[in-house]
Amino acid sequence: MQTKSANFLLSSELEWEKPGQGLTRQIMGYDGQLMLVKVKFEKGAIGYVHEHFHSQATYVVSGKFEVMINGEKKILEAGDGFYIEPDVPHGAVCLEEGILIDTFSPMRQDFLK
Amino acid sequence: MQTKSANFLLSSELEWEKPGQGLTRQIMGYDGQLMLVKVKFEKGAIGYVHEHFHSQATYVVSGKFEVMINGEKKILEAGDGFYIEPDVPHGAVCLEEGILIDTFSPMRQDFLK
Repeated sequence: MQTKSANFLLSSELEWEKPGQGLTRQIMGYDGQLMLVKVKFEKGAIGYVHEHFHSQATYVVSGKFEVMINGEKKILEAGDGFYIEPDVPHGAVCLEEGILIDTFSPMRQDFLK
Repeated sequence: MQTKSANFLLSSELEWEKPGQGLTRQIMGYDGQLMLVKVKFEKGAIGYVHEHFHSQATYVVSGKFEVMINGEKKILEAGDGFYIEPDVPHGAVCLEEGILIDTFSPMRQDFLK
């Protein structure tokens, strides 16, 4: 298993994975303590409620999302973001297709092969 | 000094700082081990070569950038990204105005007031 990414990450050269229905993602820059992941959502795609020990900060590149963090919901659009403490339940529903940049610390070891 | 951000970060409610000529930024989600920062570059704006002990992963939301990492240069556009190991010199020149999402681990304490 690689424990860090290349320095330059060209979208055209990165693999697209399918983590769920209506979802595709590219693992981008990472090392043991940080990981950045691009996630494309089709309209209606769901990031089911879950939790993990990693800190998470996410940026909304495009589209519209209903994001739930610890029971509170908000509609977020391009330019907005959210932060999730370790072990806090969170999820997202895509209202208009778009892209989220999910970042984690430490890296999501479970995302690597 | 705050040691973590709010959960929801609405662009319209966040302060824009001016870290340099042609540069504005919003500090978005963070805690002690992770920080996500939106940086807007005008054409020609320069992220001068520097280095820091934090791991960094960056995503190009829009625009075109010449990015230098440890002496190697590449042109990156929307959808691309880069990763910088701790202590490695890096910089960027904005060729077409745009937005970078810079993420760090641990957080950039020096970015907080």
